[in-house]
Amino acid sequence: MKPIRLVAFTMLALLSAVLSAQAADLLPSWNDRPARKAIIEFVQATTDKASPNFVPPGERIATFDQDGTLWVEHPMYTQVTYCLEQVPALAEKKPELKNMEPFKTVLSGNREAIAKLSTKDLEKIFTATLTGMTVDEFDAEAKKWIETARHPRWNRLYTELVYQPMLEVMQYLRANGFKTYIVTGSGQDFVRVYSERVYGIPPEQIVGTIGATRFGYDKNGRPMLTREPGILLADSNAGKPEGIHMMIGRRPYIAFGNSSGDREMLEYTRAGGGARLALLVMHDDAEREYAYGPAQGLPDTRLGAFTQALYDEAKKNGWIVISMKNDWKSIFSFEK
Amino acid sequence: MKPIRLVAFTMLALLSAVLSAQAADLLPSWNDRPARKAIIEFVQATTDKASPNFVPPGERIATFDQDGTLWVEHPMYTQVTYCLEQVPALAEKKPELKNMEPFKTVLSGNREAIAKLSTKDLEKIFTATLTGMTVDEFDAEAKKWIETARHPRWNRLYTELVYQPMLEVMQYLRANGFKTYIVTGSGQDFVRVYSERVYGIPPEQIVGTIGATRFGYDKNGRPMLTREPGILLADSNAGKPEGIHMMIGRRPYIAFGNSSGDREMLEYTRAGGGARLALLVMHDDAEREYAYGPAQGLPDTRLGAFTQALYDEAKKNGWIVISMKNDWKSIFSFEK
Repeated sequence: MKPIRLVAFTMLALLSAVLSAQAADLLPSWNDRPARKAIIEFVQATTDKASPNFVPPGERIATFDQDGTLWVEHPMYTQVTYCLEQVPALAEKKPELKNMEPFKTVLSGNREAIAKLSTKDLEKIFTATLTGMTVDEFDAEAKKWIETARHPRWNRLYTELVYQPMLEVMQYLRANGFKTYIVTGSGQDFVRVYSERVYGIPPEQIVGTIGATRFGYDKNGRPMLTREPGILLADSNAGKPEGIHMMIGRRPYIAFGNSSGDREMLEYTRAGGGARLALLVMHDDAEREYAYGPAQGLPDTRLGAFTQALYDEAKKNGWIVISMKNDWKSIFSFEK
Repeated sequence: MKPIRLVAFTMLALLSAVLSAQAADLLPSWNDRPARKAIIEFVQATTDKASPNFVPPGERIATFDQDGTLWVEHPMYTQVTYCLEQVPALAEKKPELKNMEPFKTVLSGNREAIAKLSTKDLEKIFTATLTGMTVDEFDAEAKKWIETARHPRWNRLYTELVYQPMLEVMQYLRANGFKTYIVTGSGQDFVRVYSERVYGIPPEQIVGTIGATRFGYDKNGRPMLTREPGILLADSNAGKPEGIHMMIGRRPYIAFGNSSGDREMLEYTRAGGGARLALLVMHDDAEREYAYGPAQGLPDTRLGAFTQALYDEAKKNGWIVISMKNDWKSIFSFEK
């Protein structure tokens, strides 16, 4: 080999080694299986200017459902736990609630009875604990709670129960010019309280269920925003693409969900032109997290469950089903 | 003078010259008067880490009303003109409208009669021309229009009638880490059609009046979003702070308006802690643009006028009133 060729060959070999090392570094908590491969190929296809599926940086939108997709949603959605745990303090301020249902049941601490509360009962609890205060008061209250409340199974803060592989996906997408959004059925203002710290996602990139607010003035004539009963956007199912249009005004190129409540968002994402990726997190790891949903042969009785019909739609349309058990090397950062 | 001192002195003189040159380059279409000075001092106070009013980059939010603040709003809001000009094409598709009011009046071309249409009539026209199509169809239609429609006075595209001094403020704020938002009574999706090209503001940073959309499927089972009658947010007056909270989730540090419809946004902005700046554009230049509002002794009969009461509130509370006549060297970029 002539010296100049040798140099070229060596450089090429070095470059190739560097590139494989980089590829191996990508998404380190993911096993090298089809889901990881699909995400990496999607990013390459949308960010390479020579690719027919290149997407200009400003249009690179990625959306993530939260509960069950980014963090643990069992045994209850975190915000539902928040609302239930606010009831005792509320009953101190308004003692008349102590003998009124559904507050009486919540105060009894009887878990079985609480689990059986109807949707209507829960709505009463949501209204009582999420409205009637200023947005700043709510923010302070929710912040205080989320900084101390712990999940019963792990005895860890809820904010520690985020899925490490999903954090890596968010960072990887952002490093490639994607703007990451959370699109959640949970309250927009609730998730905003911790989203920046936990996910690196600022308040303006949270699309959630939106309650009404009312601008007014306090006793001293100081402007304030009060949280009111009434929902402007129920950000689940059809509400997800509607909320995405309202809050972002662009269609995502990649969207992650884990239940039927995410179905319309994934369909809407895929219906755009070019390379679009839809992914569903499947909870099939009872040992490290939970197992529920179609692959388990277990009924998923939650609101917005991962149904067999959703699984079939995913398989039929080339959506990626992520197996927590098989695709994720580790689930939480504290496992490492 | 010793040589070393001479060098130091020369360097200091040079540095000082460079700094003044930079200051002189800032906001070049602004005369060196209190409004320009207040904006520059605000940016210095909020971006200097040593300042007691320093604001971390992510929290630097700037909001701008559009019509009358960023571009010409006379003789009509641009979107109202759009809706009126859509009526002939609509009547071709739905001939029954030709003999129905208020469409008949619009089709007559009688400007006086059109100017007298009631709010209820206008709402009928808005519903007929802004809803009933998919969001993509509306986007294409509005885009086609805005690329060709011209203002009667200047015979120029509406998008050319942006105020050059305000473009400079936006660029200056962005260069200093501020995220710029439009907060407008006009339709959110209408402004999104041109905002990126005209102002450098992407769709997700437009807060406007929000119409309902409905997710569904077309004949071929393809997901689509349809524009529906019904308003989710009327983004004027109290709707502006409410919309800001919903879409951004943070309080602005600096806000620009030009009418009573912006009052609550400016009040809300100023009520935050630290350095917060509220500014009102006053139309007092009949020669180069229009003159209306309190300083003219002329009644401003528009919806959301710049009233004398607003002027008094501004003066009382240290808001900056920008005189187009005195503060702006040039108004439009084509004047240069």
